Amino acid sequence: MKKIILTGDRPTGRLHVGHYVGSLKRRVELQNSGLYDKIFIMIADAQALTDNADNPEKVRQNIVEVALDYLACGIDPSKSTIFIQSQIPELCEFTTYFMNLVTVSRVQRNPTVKSEIQMRNFETSIPVGFFTYPISQASDITAFRATTVPVGEDQLPMLEQTKEIVNKFNAVYGETLAEPEILLPDNKACLRLPGIDGKAKMSKSLNNCIYLSDSKEEVNAKVMSMFTDPNHLRVEDPGEVENNPVFIYLDAFCKEEHFKKYLTDYKNLQELKEHYQRGGLGDVKVKRFLNNVLQEELEPIRSRRKEYEKNIPEIYRMLQTGCTQARKVASETLADVKRAMKINYFEDEELILEQTKRYESK
Amino acid sequence: MKKIILTGDRPTGRLHVGHYVGSLKRRVELQNSGLYDKIFIMIADAQALTDNADNPEKVRQNIVEVALDYLACGIDPSKSTIFIQSQIPELCEFTTYFMNLVTVSRVQRNPTVKSEIQMRNFETSIPVGFFTYPISQASDITAFRATTVPVGEDQLPMLEQTKEIVNKFNAVYGETLAEPEILLPDNKACLRLPGIDGKAKMSKSLNNCIYLSDSKEEVNAKVMSMFTDPNHLRVEDPGEVENNPVFIYLDAFCKEEHFKKYLTDYKNLQELKEHYQRGGLGDVKVKRFLNNVLQEELEPIRSRRKEYEKNIPEIYRMLQTGCTQARKVASETLADVKRAMKINYFEDEELILEQTKRYESK
Repeated sequence: MKKIILTGDRPTGRLHVGHYVGSLKRRVELQNSGLYDKIFIMIADAQALTDNADNPEKVRQNIVEVALDYLACGIDPSKSTIFIQSQIPELCEFTTYFMNLVTVSRVQRNPTVKSEIQMRNFETSIPVGFFTYPISQASDITAFRATTVPVGEDQLPMLEQTKEIVNKFNAVYGETLAEPEILLPDNKACLRLPGIDGKAKMSKSLNNCIYLSDSKEEVNAKVMSMFTDPNHLRVEDPGEVENNPVFIYLDAFCKEEHFKKYLTDYKNLQELKEHYQRGGLGDVKVKRFLNNVLQEELEPIRSRRKEYEKNIPEIYRMLQTGCTQARKVASETLADVKRAMKINYFEDEELILEQTKRYESK
Repeated sequence: MKKIILTGDRPTGRLHVGHYVGSLKRRVELQNSGLYDKIFIMIADAQALTDNADNPEKVRQNIVEVALDYLACGIDPSKSTIFIQSQIPELCEFTTYFMNLVTVSRVQRNPTVKSEIQMRNFETSIPVGFFTYPISQASDITAFRATTVPVGEDQLPMLEQTKEIVNKFNAVYGETLAEPEILLPDNKACLRLPGIDGKAKMSKSLNNCIYLSDSKEEVNAKVMSMFTDPNHLRVEDPGEVENNPVFIYLDAFCKEEHFKKYLTDYKNLQELKEHYQRGGLGDVKVKRFLNNVLQEELEPIRSRRKEYEKNIPEIYRMLQTGCTQARKVASETLADVKRAMKINYFEDEELILEQTKRYESK
């Protein structure tokens, strides 16, 4: 069986360092590993519209931003198919038929749906499109016959829903679709970066993100303004490294060689942390080090992005090519699905012949 | 504004006399009235699958039966476009975007959905596809820019839902879609015929329907076995005409000229009813009269159907032509919808130009 990856992002803003360590960096590694036959990367505009229906402009403007961030990080359109969800109409057909295989109460029990509803303060006014997005996600995954879905642990219930739909479909209509597997992150520190204000989630509205497209000066200013341990008031005070955004970022980004280059007083992060915990190490010194580490990682991304930004029409052409490729695959799977469901009436010669004979013999 | 009708049936069985007096007969009159610019008649297989997902064979087999019944009744493919819902993939796209404009609690409050859920004993195990069918129905109506939807009073809440979606869409994305109007039946007797067993609903599983495709002998046998007033035991007993299926059928089918032809003892239905109510009129006499009336109406339908049954592949070709015509209209409306939502990125030169300029000035 071919190994196929499906992954993607909602185009509701530029991508930030949280996206980078949480998924983009690994996505590029998987792309370049040679272990996968196909990689589909979806800009999920239709999904973004489920809770941004009244602000399509936000989604519309951010598609190209996300595409630029992808290319800047090293996603290579000759190796990975980047496409826009809404441009693959077949996905809506999958959802239509999958919706018959899932009960309302099953969706209501989905823990991811539950917590997303809570996070967005939807309560009883959840849009139906948002409520049913686990089914739409199953469509995305199965349409591309994805075997591997690299997502965080919080997405496990979504993958379970997809597997249930696949199994139900195969049981009712015959073996047609394959179960996907989740590919969890291999580095716990990368699971979720906090905002620079220490809040659990980076969010555009909180203005607490470091974007991949931020300039050198913006990154520096944001790092220097980062929250640390609020009880670490004087340099000599002992400091906390847990729940301290500066150290969480260092956990995610810094390697031993960074110390040789930028902070020769310490051999590694462990030594730095111990000094901070003992007391006697000031925040500014640690932040300057983090800034150097971050700039080293972000500089090549930033300069690649600048190149791509020079030709926006070319980005749209790349996306259009990706959509064409993705649509071909989705429509082939859809044809298999419709054949299995036997709703391919006009190509179903057996049906027409059998009904002709039945009426002849009457 | 053009006057456009959308109507249709779920292909879960052959059509019966209830469908005929409830909608088919009038549909043919509307078709032949010359008052409508376009008439779309949808064989709603996708909707039928929402509560028959595990029995696609029933739906698959009955598409041609419904089409034969249409043609037999006088639906003329040169005047009306007969098409199959699942063959118009654009409808699924409409539903995807409309689902973002309706809340879960709004669907839950829909009285038609409530009563259908009850009727089908779904309770908590409602398939999501069935739960969301008011939204799918709004897609069917708006995709064809229908101005006129001829349905029963029980469907009013569905039309209300469509109007709400149209208004919400226009408010959010700009004036794009038109509100449809319901066209209620003009004859109360035709609203709903009971089964021949007196049960409120004709149903294949109850074996209580007179089908348009039934032979002369089958119709005769079914009429003679019809329930009447259970207290009308002897000819001389007074009888009830309300809730008496034989008289309900006569209300729907018989005209004064039938008395001159088949039952000269009475001038009209009123006289016949009065005799039955007084006592002294036997059921058999009334049933024989009903049989004559019904046979007169059904004979031309039956013989036209026999002709069409001789060439089943031709029926599929007619349906395929209808699907092509319907798809063209739906895809034009969808293009308008996507343009209004501004998710037509690749043809959106303004977007590409604006983003190019923004990056040039950075």
